[in-house]
Amino acid sequence: METRINRQWRLAARPEGMVGEEHFRWVEEQAPRVERDGQVLVRTLYLSCDPTQRGWMARDTYLPAVAIGEVMRSFGVGSVVESRHPDYWEGQLVQGLLGWQDYALLDGDSARLSVVPEGVPIPIAMSALGITGLTAYFGLLEIGRPEAGETVVVSGAAGATGSVVGQIARLKGCRVVGIAGGPEKHRWLVDEARFDAAIDYRREDVAARLAELCPDGIDIYFDNVGGEILDAALARLAFKGRVVLCGAIADYNRSELGPGPRNYLNLLLQRGRMEGFIILDFLERAGEAVAELRRWVEAGEIKVEVDVQEGLENAPRTLRRLFTGANRGKQLLRIA
Amino acid sequence: METRINRQWRLAARPEGMVGEEHFRWVEEQAPRVERDGQVLVRTLYLSCDPTQRGWMARDTYLPAVAIGEVMRSFGVGSVVESRHPDYWEGQLVQGLLGWQDYALLDGDSARLSVVPEGVPIPIAMSALGITGLTAYFGLLEIGRPEAGETVVVSGAAGATGSVVGQIARLKGCRVVGIAGGPEKHRWLVDEARFDAAIDYRREDVAARLAELCPDGIDIYFDNVGGEILDAALARLAFKGRVVLCGAIADYNRSELGPGPRNYLNLLLQRGRMEGFIILDFLERAGEAVAELRRWVEAGEIKVEVDVQEGLENAPRTLRRLFTGANRGKQLLRIA
Repeated sequence: METRINRQWRLAARPEGMVGEEHFRWVEEQAPRVERDGQVLVRTLYLSCDPTQRGWMARDTYLPAVAIGEVMRSFGVGSVVESRHPDYWEGQLVQGLLGWQDYALLDGDSARLSVVPEGVPIPIAMSALGITGLTAYFGLLEIGRPEAGETVVVSGAAGATGSVVGQIARLKGCRVVGIAGGPEKHRWLVDEARFDAAIDYRREDVAARLAELCPDGIDIYFDNVGGEILDAALARLAFKGRVVLCGAIADYNRSELGPGPRNYLNLLLQRGRMEGFIILDFLERAGEAVAELRRWVEAGEIKVEVDVQEGLENAPRTLRRLFTGANRGKQLLRIA
Repeated sequence: METRINRQWRLAARPEGMVGEEHFRWVEEQAPRVERDGQVLVRTLYLSCDPTQRGWMARDTYLPAVAIGEVMRSFGVGSVVESRHPDYWEGQLVQGLLGWQDYALLDGDSARLSVVPEGVPIPIAMSALGITGLTAYFGLLEIGRPEAGETVVVSGAAGATGSVVGQIARLKGCRVVGIAGGPEKHRWLVDEARFDAAIDYRREDVAARLAELCPDGIDIYFDNVGGEILDAALARLAFKGRVVLCGAIADYNRSELGPGPRNYLNLLLQRGRMEGFIILDFLERAGEAVAELRRWVEAGEIKVEVDVQEGLENAPRTLRRLFTGANRGKQLLRIA
């Protein structure tokens, strides 16, 4: 019987500032085996890098913090190598919280694994049809509730979630303005993803550009970044405008809470609404969303950009790419 | 034909810090007369003092700023002394934007006057059944959407709006915690208005007391004050909690924007919603609300506290009482 090595990154310290390799410990141990009914052993193929992982490392949030010494939590896609659960079988491709490791031994009932649809490339399954695509879909449609003709502004617009938000908004008949850093992202947003306009927050005055590009105000601001950009968007909120809180990447690597949005009282003057959501609450409805997203992607209506790095040993530095803005679209790490 | 003198306070300067008499100019001139069809001349009897007036003095908000030289805008109740409008007649008591003056010449169609219901004392008509009562009613029920058994926290709880919010919440089966300053207000909230608990923000640590009094979190926070109390409430938000933004009296006399709510990201973690509203949007539905509020007041279910000062010459200092916390309940000024 072959002995499989299970390489892992375990959490070693809670980050206060920027996340880095010093917060993890590399461990190699023997891979686990299925021992009880209901268990599934999955060989990780790809890991998903998501800003929310920074929060999981630091404190209890909508999920308990990763414990010190525990394998770093991460979404991933893998192939089932052993199963004593009736819904899963060897060779099947599944998606779920596999962690930063080669092999994940999971309880098939509680692990909420989803099966990767036939005929979909893994990077698409993990981006537009994965957690970030679903985040875009439910966040925009259920929390933002766009109507044709409205102006939608998205921050982190070239990222995995933001790029899908903007393209769904376009498909719903909205005018879409994306905010992202750097000329390449700017070009991609306008030329490939067909946003109506883009703002390069590194070179441009975001508040001034929003005033130019949204003369009637912002009906929906989908926020992935927090900080000053959230404040600039609040200042331009239209009557009955909505702010969808999806994340605040600008604040995730601060050692303490950043300043709050000073312009929050515009919610009062404009009768606006600022609302947060967590995609885990919508996973029961993932089927409908994945089907619709898949139609859009296959028809070329939604363009997907995926940034694939290689090697489990690079997991910490690949996660870090999200916070330096180095990633182009969905950040993945191929490990097998 | 008698000559009536119309005493007025006109706006002289835009306040930057605390509002005071120096921002107004006292003028006495001949009272206007009805000259055209549709006009109504109203003799002001009582003026309503409301925190929002500080905003009207300073800048365009949901209404244009009061112009320099213009009579200070204010809600009030008066009696019709002349009318060439079919809906209004001499001797009728009406409520609307009369301004800080003895006589207001209004266009009956555009002035949105409401007739004071028969048999209701004017101070009740101007508080629990007036703009502040309606603000409480629609803000809590339409924006907050309380359900029986939920925990509702109200700031400015002994004020005109907050006191009614808390009592409606109690009538809807909620647990109610009020935040107000000073032992007298504390006593009134618990003994008279029958709040479940009260926090004296001047003597107590609001965050610690909220943790004690709301062990399962805050389902609805109705905010009249902004500032640190809003932040403390956000930190205790329950799953799917709502923050109703009604005002931010703590910030109204700052010369520049205060800091924003640092804990706003709890809206994301708790899937919460923070939403603002302006009572003017609900005035078409005032009838139903006034009828229900009147039943509650007449049945003793809603206690009303009214603080009546005397004399038009005292208008600036009476308005100021709101910002020093000197008022007990609804602040009115009797001028005739």
